[in-house]
Amino acid sequence: MKNMYDFGLIGLGVMGRNFILNVADNGFSAYGNDLDPEKVAALKKEGGDEDRVNATTDVATFVQALSQPRKIMMLVPAGKIVDSVIEGLLPHIDEGDIIIDGGNSFFTDTDRRAEYLAEKGIHFFGAGVSGGAKGARKGPSIMPGGSKEGYAAVQPIFEAVSAKYEGEPCVAYLGPKSAGNYVKMVHNGIEYGLMQLTSEIYDLLKKGGDYSNLELHELYTKWNEGRLQSFLVEITSKIFSKKDDLKMGELGLLDQISDKAKQKGTGKWTSQNAMDLGIPVPSIDIAVSMREISALKEERTHADTLYDRPEVEKMDKLILAELAEKALYFSFIVTYAQGLHQLADASKEYGYELDIAVIAKIWRAGCIIRAGLLADITEAFQADDHLPNLLVSPLFTEKVQSTVGAARKLVAYAATNGIPLPGLSNSLTYFDAYTSTRLPLNLIQAQRDYFGSHTYERLDREGVFHTEWEE
Amino acid sequence: MKNMYDFGLIGLGVMGRNFILNVADNGFSAYGNDLDPEKVAALKKEGGDEDRVNATTDVATFVQALSQPRKIMMLVPAGKIVDSVIEGLLPHIDEGDIIIDGGNSFFTDTDRRAEYLAEKGIHFFGAGVSGGAKGARKGPSIMPGGSKEGYAAVQPIFEAVSAKYEGEPCVAYLGPKSAGNYVKMVHNGIEYGLMQLTSEIYDLLKKGGDYSNLELHELYTKWNEGRLQSFLVEITSKIFSKKDDLKMGELGLLDQISDKAKQKGTGKWTSQNAMDLGIPVPSIDIAVSMREISALKEERTHADTLYDRPEVEKMDKLILAELAEKALYFSFIVTYAQGLHQLADASKEYGYELDIAVIAKIWRAGCIIRAGLLADITEAFQADDHLPNLLVSPLFTEKVQSTVGAARKLVAYAATNGIPLPGLSNSLTYFDAYTSTRLPLNLIQAQRDYFGSHTYERLDREGVFHTEWEE
Repeated sequence: MKNMYDFGLIGLGVMGRNFILNVADNGFSAYGNDLDPEKVAALKKEGGDEDRVNATTDVATFVQALSQPRKIMMLVPAGKIVDSVIEGLLPHIDEGDIIIDGGNSFFTDTDRRAEYLAEKGIHFFGAGVSGGAKGARKGPSIMPGGSKEGYAAVQPIFEAVSAKYEGEPCVAYLGPKSAGNYVKMVHNGIEYGLMQLTSEIYDLLKKGGDYSNLELHELYTKWNEGRLQSFLVEITSKIFSKKDDLKMGELGLLDQISDKAKQKGTGKWTSQNAMDLGIPVPSIDIAVSMREISALKEERTHADTLYDRPEVEKMDKLILAELAEKALYFSFIVTYAQGLHQLADASKEYGYELDIAVIAKIWRAGCIIRAGLLADITEAFQADDHLPNLLVSPLFTEKVQSTVGAARKLVAYAATNGIPLPGLSNSLTYFDAYTSTRLPLNLIQAQRDYFGSHTYERLDREGVFHTEWEE
Repeated sequence: MKNMYDFGLIGLGVMGRNFILNVADNGFSAYGNDLDPEKVAALKKEGGDEDRVNATTDVATFVQALSQPRKIMMLVPAGKIVDSVIEGLLPHIDEGDIIIDGGNSFFTDTDRRAEYLAEKGIHFFGAGVSGGAKGARKGPSIMPGGSKEGYAAVQPIFEAVSAKYEGEPCVAYLGPKSAGNYVKMVHNGIEYGLMQLTSEIYDLLKKGGDYSNLELHELYTKWNEGRLQSFLVEITSKIFSKKDDLKMGELGLLDQISDKAKQKGTGKWTSQNAMDLGIPVPSIDIAVSMREISALKEERTHADTLYDRPEVEKMDKLILAELAEKALYFSFIVTYAQGLHQLADASKEYGYELDIAVIAKIWRAGCIIRAGLLADITEAFQADDHLPNLLVSPLFTEKVQSTVGAARKLVAYAATNGIPLPGLSNSLTYFDAYTSTRLPLNLIQAQRDYFGSHTYERLDREGVFHTEWEE
């Protein structure tokens, strides 16, 4: 029994259990570990053959069962638990063993842990895993970074278990240090942005075009067959048609779900870190804000009673759908553009040596933000690996130019009719500002110099200037 | 010469020099300290009588010159300099002495320093100072928090030097720990929001109504006589009429100023910390983003060549001005509402025991965000000290209801015509979302449960639910 299993996994929640079964399905023997005996039992039952999948609550047994160098992946909640799992492993493992953090750890924590473990001769790396429960089971997108030597040892396993896009595995070594966790963080930030967009367009169609859930199901299904093809549009179409088991199978489970949205922090981290880098990601920022506003349900309910809202002037259903499809496509592009812009800058700031084309490639299948668009994005960055922003790619200007008009119409319509489209609005104002040679922030520089003597630059000559504004 | 000066100040930059002269004008003798002999000499020259104002480059001399308990204020850049100034002082000062950090230190730094110095028997507190160079000289708004005993000792001096609003000093003890620095941070976040709004409305008037600088000067001057009365509108009106000395006194210095805006971090901190608290402040977030976008001048200039912008359909000058005045008033209110919401929540989270009415009171004069509106805001929180949001104050609903229509019209107009109004858009979508009983984030909860089994709540019954979405 000793030293025979190819792969070890700690944390047998939904993601961990599914990941380990995926590993076994691909011909690697795998051993699981969790403190909870029920989870251990559940895995053993589901795994069947003990030589293929086994599990234990005991760390020593777990470690001894793995072939060397041991490949141990953690899928546990980010934070202190990760540190305590590592401490629990240390007495049992040997130099040259490999620990992989597959969770959503904050990137600076990963850097700290990698340094700490490198001193002990342990290869450590963060590998973001996206695809949800089903992805973990059937093929996720995996974003590893950190120890290159460590990654090489698990590469065959990761390539086997990962999602495939036209035969290519959706996993690649992304760069040193916490590159893997960082890329996964921004992936999640983009995910926040796209989810906000799909949800506000749903609101618009309902309020502006009286779309029923069934009609929404049909519309999103159709969209998913076109250029909007994506995991999020696909599952949204299915959500619209889901029946409510607690209401005798009536259509419209969605209508009964509370609109207080939760968050686990990765979207927030993306926004906060983008601000540290000085990179604008307003389509992600606003998605974070909207989850926060959604949580203030009682305040909203009270505020609603105090104001008159404009009566919505209904739009023709088909025209509205056409505009919505274009606006969604436009704002999806802008959201990816912002996230990738952040990645390019983070790569310089933190020395990640990221290749954006490779990242887009491994996002084409398996992950939550997979979308037809990612094939085009891959191409855009393959054509120009120093592309400063997706919006200036020759492959994208026509896509954007032909859809921005719809975004303009819908933002105008929604503002007039009191329907909040914050994600689309921010995507549009970002676009309008990013494509403006001249912005009015000269006034802000003048104000700053006026009250704080912060000085300013001029357009017509070099240097730094200060004016005595009051004479 | 020993032990005779009432007040000491370290850091004789523009703010420090002006503050110390202000102290002296109010009948307190003051001693300055700076490593730079030129700054020391400049202050001594400007101060005149050495018994009233004196200065030295030597810390020991400086400390010995102060009466006990010594009241020593630092006005130095935030960060490590603050720590090194404190370390430089420690060998010379005595238990019971008072150190005040008047700079924009990050609030957790202030907490750390207060704890460190309390162990040594030194009273330490952060006191945000707003009003720019002129405010420091003629009367700033001062936001002290932290050691109550320490504050009591300098209270007479601070009350004398602070701005006055109808005779009341614009300074008050705000709460324990880093309350003072925190309130100043959010003050600056609101400042970012208001500056963005004044600058984008300037852009709108120019592009949509062909307003000249002189006409803008007249318009903002008129606005400043009405309900928009505020320091920022006032200085903006003066900026519009400022002549360009480098262009032989032509009107329009503003047109020559670069539109790459700088920032020093307090706006960013406000946004980042609001996200940690889970409080939405999108009108501040977007102001931070816009400074970032403005800095990408080369990228913008290139992107501008790739896209066609709609031709702006001009609006009637007077109608546009009327809408702009209303929209600016609306969005100013929303921006204050967000900042104050953050303060109320931070007060609970960090134990600051803030009284929002007192904060609004001391912002009514002296500081950069002083405005006629703050008298109304003070009243609103005096009437209800548990007001969850300014938008639900009975004193504000009519103000907001009567102006939100103009915001709708302008956001629609700007979106249609390719003029970015990101601050106004975010103020409007915040309003529309905050006053909606039902938001479409039920879809986001369904998506999260679909791909991640994150569960959801229902509207029609208690509990936590999970659905098997695919069958």
